[in-house]
Amino acid sequence: MSAQSAQKTSPGNFFEDFRLGQEIRHATPRTITVGDVALYQGLFGNRFALQSSDLFAQKIGFPRAPVDDLLVFHIVFGKTVPDISLNAVANLGYADCRFLKPVFPGSTLNAVSEIIGLKENSNKKAGIVYVRSRGFDDTGDAVLDYARWVMVRKRDETAASPHEKVPELPKNVEPTQLGGACPKINCAAYDNVLAGSVNRFDSYKGGEKIDHIDGVTVEEAEHQIATRLYQNTARIHFNQFAESKGRFGRRLIYGGHVISLARALSFNGLANAFQVAAINGGRHVAPLFAGCTVFAWSEILACAEFPDREDIGALRVRTIATKDRPCSDFPLKSGHDYDPAVILDLDYWLLLPR
Amino acid sequence: MSAQSAQKTSPGNFFEDFRLGQEIRHATPRTITVGDVALYQGLFGNRFALQSSDLFAQKIGFPRAPVDDLLVFHIVFGKTVPDISLNAVANLGYADCRFLKPVFPGSTLNAVSEIIGLKENSNKKAGIVYVRSRGFDDTGDAVLDYARWVMVRKRDETAASPHEKVPELPKNVEPTQLGGACPKINCAAYDNVLAGSVNRFDSYKGGEKIDHIDGVTVEEAEHQIATRLYQNTARIHFNQFAESKGRFGRRLIYGGHVISLARALSFNGLANAFQVAAINGGRHVAPLFAGCTVFAWSEILACAEFPDREDIGALRVRTIATKDRPCSDFPLKSGHDYDPAVILDLDYWLLLPR
Amino acid sequence: MSAQSAQKTSPGNFFEDFRLGQEIRHATPRTITVGDVALYQGLFGNRFALQSSDLFAQKIGFPRAPVDDLLVFHIVFGKTVPDISLNAVANLGYADCRFLKPVFPGSTLNAVSEIIGLKENSNKKAGIVYVRSRGFDDTGDAVLDYARWVMVRKRDETAASPHEKVPELPKNVEPTQLGGACPKINCAAYDNVLAGSVNRFDSYKGGEKIDHIDGVTVEEAEHQIATRLYQNTARIHFNQFAESKGRFGRRLIYGGHVISLARALSFNGLANAFQVAAINGGRHVAPLFAGCTVFAWSEILACAEFPDREDIGALRVRTIATKDRPCSDFPLKSGHDYDPAVILDLDYWLLLPR
Repeated sequence: MSAQSAQKTSPGNFFEDFRLGQEIRHATPRTITVGDVALYQGLFGNRFALQSSDLFAQKIGFPRAPVDDLLVFHIVFGKTVPDISLNAVANLGYADCRFLKPVFPGSTLNAVSEIIGLKENSNKKAGIVYVRSRGFDDTGDAVLDYARWVMVRKRDETAASPHEKVPELPKNVEPTQLGGACPKINCAAYDNVLAGSVNRFDSYKGGEKIDHIDGVTVEEAEHQIATRLYQNTARIHFNQFAESKGRFGRRLIYGGHVISLARALSFNGLANAFQVAAINGGRHVAPLFAGCTVFAWSEILACAEFPDREDIGALRVRTIATKDRPCSDFPLKSGHDYDPAVILDLDYWLLLPR
Repeated sequence: MSAQSAQKTSPGNFFEDFRLGQEIRHATPRTITVGDVALYQGLFGNRFALQSSDLFAQKIGFPRAPVDDLLVFHIVFGKTVPDISLNAVANLGYADCRFLKPVFPGSTLNAVSEIIGLKENSNKKAGIVYVRSRGFDDTGDAVLDYARWVMVRKRDETAASPHEKVPELPKNVEPTQLGGACPKINCAAYDNVLAGSVNRFDSYKGGEKIDHIDGVTVEEAEHQIATRLYQNTARIHFNQFAESKGRFGRRLIYGGHVISLARALSFNGLANAFQVAAINGGRHVAPLFAGCTVFAWSEILACAEFPDREDIGALRVRTIATKDRPCSDFPLKSGHDYDPAVILDLDYWLLLPR
Repeated sequence: MSAQSAQKTSPGNFFEDFRLGQEIRHATPRTITVGDVALYQGLFGNRFALQSSDLFAQKIGFPRAPVDDLLVFHIVFGKTVPDISLNAVANLGYADCRFLKPVFPGSTLNAVSEIIGLKENSNKKAGIVYVRSRGFDDTGDAVLDYARWVMVRKRDETAASPHEKVPELPKNVEPTQLGGACPKINCAAYDNVLAGSVNRFDSYKGGEKIDHIDGVTVEEAEHQIATRLYQNTARIHFNQFAESKGRFGRRLIYGGHVISLARALSFNGLANAFQVAAINGGRHVAPLFAGCTVFAWSEILACAEFPDREDIGALRVRTIATKDRPCSDFPLKSGHDYDPAVILDLDYWLLLPR
């Protein structure tokens, strides 16, 4: 009986279940709607005009308000969880994440992953799985493409070690690869007042630091509703009964929740950064729990113009999120280590009108 | 003045207000939208492909993704509360609940109930009201039909006893009555990978037990938002001031919330059970409160083929939900009584592709 | 670097930044969708048939179900916060608030404010800013118009005092100004049963008091989600880290949340009051915090017929909301002061069918 049951339910994949080059089509295609957009709005409070107003979007060159890039990311990411990271020990990093095509309400997303690297830990209890995941819309076009590596437990410590391969991943997405999700923008029709800031691309300089000032306290219901909206099934976010006996004694908030909070906070200082074009890398430095208040600050790492388009430019931005610590002094390191308040170190490209 | 006020506000019906054969049209018609669907998704995290993807739905034969059957149930049920169960002592049971027609976003539902039985308690303080409730869409077609019995307080213990009638209700819905809400399914176009499981109807056997593994902790904000989404006004779910002096000292979670949680958890083991066709009976064995973690397991009670259609089959399933107790050993009874962790014992029919 | 940063982020306006006659166009236009409507439904549990059912709305003369008036108010109000009240000490009052045109899902709102009065406090640490704010839809029509006064801190206590002007504001909106957002209603097609009450306009009398009976407990996640849905950025609602050191030690719930809760509770007694036509004035008598249970009662202040239309009448209603205190004895004053349980004293006009 329990053997039958085991055939019906999925315990998720363990390290030894993955094969180099393996392609995994993920379950549960998802039609994104204005309902998802509204709930995402209620959960994060974004104020970027492009995603908030169909009219604003149409005036600058979009057919209507696109779905927030990070909502797309979370939905694609969520699909990969049951196959890739249900038995994860730790989510180690992202790289080469590119937003390729805008997504609009009504579009149906699905996701496919390829195993691009495997490296067993020396203790043979787990190993690192490198995976490239892609999200597709209902026309079959890729809307999102990213690499991720995650440490996954072994089911059986005596299982044979796979051939080790650690893929080479770019330290950052090249500016030439950016902007696929952004049609030509009518900068003359872009209304700074409605957008909330006079500072367009050319106002920013490399090295500039911005404290996003505000802080937002996270509740259990909020991160659970968000993470379920993405159909992300990682157990550590939802099961207090199990987590009360776990490492932290409580539910761990999905790392992507912190990214979305930081993005929303960043409006105050980056109001015209209307699209996330790429994520170069991200590190969840420390866990976040309900009841904590999240703050954020950003540093402009680089400013990239596009030789072939004069409507937009890209800022490479490093955004640091902290918990229970305002960011007016730009907390980052404490000696060689991160400041104990830092929870996220995100390196990404944002698009702004010129 | 207070007399005038009493005319304006509704204290709900008491046992002696009901008459056998009485028909009650319920208030507040409700247009269901993709907004409701998204919020339901965020609250329960369902992953059934049919309700999640318009594209998947269209490929197998639906015009678009139908609204989750239980969301339809909760909305119809919610309408009956102000008239039927505002003064309920206990919700005793359901029977003969059939989903008759799929509901899509944009459809407007209303509800009508008929009193089909009355039985006063021997202590004359309350009585059991048997009611048949039906939900209708904007074409006037019934989409849902169910019987329910509930113990309702008397306003006046000296009020005359009604003629006692206890209706005969079927122990289970006959398989011949199932499937009205399911158009002919194109099984060849049904993608097992996207649906999340290779196990279709023919993979299941009577007697088989499935632990749905995952657990989900419920927060006050979550069940309140859900229950208000259904316009269910039962006071015990919302009013901590009153409940702090009540039987449990706290807000009681709507029993339907547990059914929806169990349905969402059951995806892990029943991923292809794409529709709830009928509910044979349901018992809320014990109350659920915020902070508890809900688990579930299921037993396949019967497998029914349809003589006139080869696309689908029906599984009669018993799903048990527990609080703060994993279900790997299928907890149910402890002697003659339920295991103290059990909160729901649900007997229903699910449709699966063949 | 911090100087650069200061240019990018907005600390909000201080008292000395405002000029009489100044016009401020506010940021972040917002397309309202059925997603917003559903989330608002989940947060407040409204049951007014007009806003709940497209079919009901169409039968009585609307093209479809309009967006709840208070959701429109909150969204317009939210836009004004970053410019007007980010440095507010206290929100002092509203006046002359009129709903001018119905808003439907798909409409895009923006907001413009004019500074109509300034009065510095005698201590020169703050001053009262009087502002008239208007919300516009995508055709450029005004949908909402209201005056508000708010005490705003000075950045620099030595800054010059402005010329003092206190605008004359009407004590109440005249009945002749009501009804712009209400098309001609087909009263014969208005179904009392679906609407939930037989009491139309002519059933109410001046002086009548109604206890709305029910109570609803507010959770942190609920008011945060609501307030973010409106893109209201007032810090006091979201930042527990800062508020833990503040006046109350905790997050203060947006006053508009109380108005919406009271409106939803008022269904029980005012079910046919299908539109808010105007707000004459409102006072947030005391703060509300999560965990408290809100109750409400209303007094009919006046009944106004319209000489030029026979389909509807207007009730001037005073609704009092309390925390942790039922309203069966209509609590209001305790000597010269408000009863300590009172949190809201709202004076507004409601439309009902005749």
